[in-house]
Amino acid sequence: MQFTAQQIATLIQGKVEGDPETTISEVAKIEDAQKGALSFVANPKYEEFIYGSKASIIIVNENLQLNGGIKPTLIRVKDAYSSFALLLEKYNEIISNDGKTGIDSTAYVADSAKVGKDVYIGAFAYIGDNVVIGDGVKIYPNCVVGDKAQIGNHTKLNAGVKVYDSCVLGNKVIIHSNTIIGSDGFGFAPQKDGSYKKIPQIGNVLIEDNVEIGANTTIDRATMGSTIIRKGVKLDNLIQIAHNVEIGENTVIAAQTGISGSTKVGKNCVIGGQVGIVGHIQIADFTSINAQSGVSKSITTPKTAITGSPAYDYKKALKSQAVSRNLPDLQQRIIDLEKTVAELSAILSEKNISNK
Amino acid sequence: MQFTAQQIATLIQGKVEGDPETTISEVAKIEDAQKGALSFVANPKYEEFIYGSKASIIIVNENLQLNGGIKPTLIRVKDAYSSFALLLEKYNEIISNDGKTGIDSTAYVADSAKVGKDVYIGAFAYIGDNVVIGDGVKIYPNCVVGDKAQIGNHTKLNAGVKVYDSCVLGNKVIIHSNTIIGSDGFGFAPQKDGSYKKIPQIGNVLIEDNVEIGANTTIDRATMGSTIIRKGVKLDNLIQIAHNVEIGENTVIAAQTGISGSTKVGKNCVIGGQVGIVGHIQIADFTSINAQSGVSKSITTPKTAITGSPAYDYKKALKSQAVSRNLPDLQQRIIDLEKTVAELSAILSEKNISNK
Amino acid sequence: MQFTAQQIATLIQGKVEGDPETTISEVAKIEDAQKGALSFVANPKYEEFIYGSKASIIIVNENLQLNGGIKPTLIRVKDAYSSFALLLEKYNEIISNDGKTGIDSTAYVADSAKVGKDVYIGAFAYIGDNVVIGDGVKIYPNCVVGDKAQIGNHTKLNAGVKVYDSCVLGNKVIIHSNTIIGSDGFGFAPQKDGSYKKIPQIGNVLIEDNVEIGANTTIDRATMGSTIIRKGVKLDNLIQIAHNVEIGENTVIAAQTGISGSTKVGKNCVIGGQVGIVGHIQIADFTSINAQSGVSKSITTPKTAITGSPAYDYKKALKSQAVSRNLPDLQQRIIDLEKTVAELSAILSEKNISNK
Repeated sequence: MQFTAQQIATLIQGKVEGDPETTISEVAKIEDAQKGALSFVANPKYEEFIYGSKASIIIVNENLQLNGGIKPTLIRVKDAYSSFALLLEKYNEIISNDGKTGIDSTAYVADSAKVGKDVYIGAFAYIGDNVVIGDGVKIYPNCVVGDKAQIGNHTKLNAGVKVYDSCVLGNKVIIHSNTIIGSDGFGFAPQKDGSYKKIPQIGNVLIEDNVEIGANTTIDRATMGSTIIRKGVKLDNLIQIAHNVEIGENTVIAAQTGISGSTKVGKNCVIGGQVGIVGHIQIADFTSINAQSGVSKSITTPKTAITGSPAYDYKKALKSQAVSRNLPDLQQRIIDLEKTVAELSAILSEKNISNK
Repeated sequence: MQFTAQQIATLIQGKVEGDPETTISEVAKIEDAQKGALSFVANPKYEEFIYGSKASIIIVNENLQLNGGIKPTLIRVKDAYSSFALLLEKYNEIISNDGKTGIDSTAYVADSAKVGKDVYIGAFAYIGDNVVIGDGVKIYPNCVVGDKAQIGNHTKLNAGVKVYDSCVLGNKVIIHSNTIIGSDGFGFAPQKDGSYKKIPQIGNVLIEDNVEIGANTTIDRATMGSTIIRKGVKLDNLIQIAHNVEIGENTVIAAQTGISGSTKVGKNCVIGGQVGIVGHIQIADFTSINAQSGVSKSITTPKTAITGSPAYDYKKALKSQAVSRNLPDLQQRIIDLEKTVAELSAILSEKNISNK
Repeated sequence: MQFTAQQIATLIQGKVEGDPETTISEVAKIEDAQKGALSFVANPKYEEFIYGSKASIIIVNENLQLNGGIKPTLIRVKDAYSSFALLLEKYNEIISNDGKTGIDSTAYVADSAKVGKDVYIGAFAYIGDNVVIGDGVKIYPNCVVGDKAQIGNHTKLNAGVKVYDSCVLGNKVIIHSNTIIGSDGFGFAPQKDGSYKKIPQIGNVLIEDNVEIGANTTIDRATMGSTIIRKGVKLDNLIQIAHNVEIGENTVIAAQTGISGSTKVGKNCVIGGQVGIVGHIQIADFTSINAQSGVSKSITTPKTAITGSPAYDYKKALKSQAVSRNLPDLQQRIIDLEKTVAELSAILSEKNISNK
């Protein structure tokens, strides 16, 4: 497929600077782009690449100031990042239309399951009793959807996803391979002999619309009620969401982070990778948590930024971290001071200079 | 299903306070419970909810003191937490009896495998050569049990569990979805050209009775001998247990913790989430390790509590962490002291006051 | 199978010390070895076990000095560790030849897939359209290989591995169960209403020859171009490799480590467990990163060793960590100094001793 600069500009409401008949047939990163490629620059750090670029077309912000000598045709738009995302999305729609459709003859679909229109259920997928599957759903090979689970319209389960019984997924949810929805929460009652008794986990997981979840992530079902992932949440790979947690709308969490039981995370938070959050606390809306932080207390003020383990104010923590590298030096300076002060005291004492 | 307060009280050896004919048909958290619900309060933090609760029946500790005006029927027992757990367990038995039984026609079971009585083997499950499966075992869809593996009585493998060849699981073990038992330990011999040669991992994994393991956890087989998970151990999701590790009886480990090769963890330890433990060390019985700790040395004294990375005494570490937040202030105070002391020294020098 | 000391010595070019006709039928750790077992000692820590060992044959380094009274037959070699590895490998070849061959009748192999010679494709495995599979490849049950993916010669996918479409694996690659190759990178463009728009991930993953990857690890496909794992890399379990990352030749990474997007790790690095590395940085060749480190800046000098979060020079960090344990003491000493210095100042002021 080939597209002209003018076709693309029309699509993203941009203005062509250069030959509108320039054609592209692929997309590439600005630093890698060759003739025939479309690229974009949104981050000022990458502006330098524009000058020597072999790309045929580059999408840039309308206010970007450039010196002369630019060979590629430019398309200026309000927001190069979003415009490029829009193009990629359309490109993706084309390539992601992998032609998979229908229920594979090797899939197991319970008689009591209700399956919508235009659905793909791949080989060796298992759809349990009384499952409800919406329209346009794609379930790839080796997925398992437990009894009474519900899958909303246009939701996609990549190969190997396991949804336990009674869990509910909304519309346009994307879940990556081998992620687990609805495993038992980790709840055990200690017994007098030192052993533990399992607290049955009879709740479920509720995932709202437009959520995307990475690969090999685990979301436990609630002890009672629901573990809830609100609409628009984006979870990366290998994340642990414990029982009865609630993640607020549009919150984004990077890989390998773990959130302990019953904690409620607000909306529009940005949480880095490998963060740990203890159970039974609240995280205010718009909280920003740096990678590898350990959060042990509720964050009550929205838009707080924290880091460290235990985590506290981001800027203060950075200062303390900087000083902590000088600790051996600080210790030596204390030792030196003690010595000097002891000498001064001795001198005064020797000379009988005192308050007495 | 409906139960009366009297029926429940009889079951858990409790005493009804209120109408013994009150009926419930569901269970709920005390803060959510509506008419028709059974709930419990064991944690004093939740006692306040009793007063306004719409629950029909609440299980409480026998020594709980309450002011008047309680509407729900109470059942007083020695230990509300355990009694509620017992009820949940019975409730769970009823609901978890999902009717799954028999060997699905799409499952693959090797001719040489020995399968016990009352077994469920779900769709697309694979049971290899010479596998031995006990009575009452449930193996959900898409599980793989490798050649010569053994699965004890009443053990449950949720969908997608993979058990490598020759691994041995005890009785009443529960393993959650996509957990891996018996993958190769991470052992490579460095070669002179900078590459590595695989050390074959010819041991296995041995899991004793009553162990529960969460989802997407990995337990590597031993290089030689066995990686051992002793009876009653509870492992959460996304945990890494390396080759030749041994986890002692009734030890509980939270999500995303990793234990390196050949380390032996004692019994009845409580290990938080995201903890890392180096290889070839011993952790004494009843050790308590705080979340995100990094344990680099053996713990030789039982009942030790540690935190931090590197981890040491819990109380001392908390004090150091508190002080570390004031490091910029401490640094400034050292600078101020140095200035003052230099001034004092200068004064004394000026006035010819010295020890000489 | 039985082997004599002489047979083994010939194989590993060693020298027998004792009866060359001694036979063994199994391998065991030096501390566990019984009559009939072959063991080895390479680490000086384990030398003491040689004296009381019941092993029939022990492989040791040629320069190992021992006192008398050794019962087992010894085989002296240049490098006991590598020689034992070589033997284990040959032993492993024998035992790992599990007889699995051919394409199982329940496997799904697309008509357009090209499959090499001597291939095993297990039950319920799914091989998509236009997949290319080399000679001697083993794909265990419940694996999924997406459309257009390529699998090199003698590569082994353990049960449950999922390879997304268009990913490319080299020769002699080993991937453990339920690991995901090619899930979407975590890329979202923030929108004005606080929601996020998915940046389509249209690249792939490229894995070169002789790579081994543990269980439940995730390697995301590139946004554009390839996420690259160079030849000889060894990745442990539960590792996260984000989009557009490149891992250099022969680099070894322990379990639960995460590497953020677009970071380039050099060759022959050794990275501990639970390490986090931010995106868009470079790590020089031969870098050594301690477990649980958080790496926030590029490492530009080869052979650097770092630790801590944020990570810096290994030796300096260890010193600071040691001092940090004394922080409450240091704080008290500052308080004491402030008091003493204030007293000295007061005395001088009282006696009208000043610079004025």
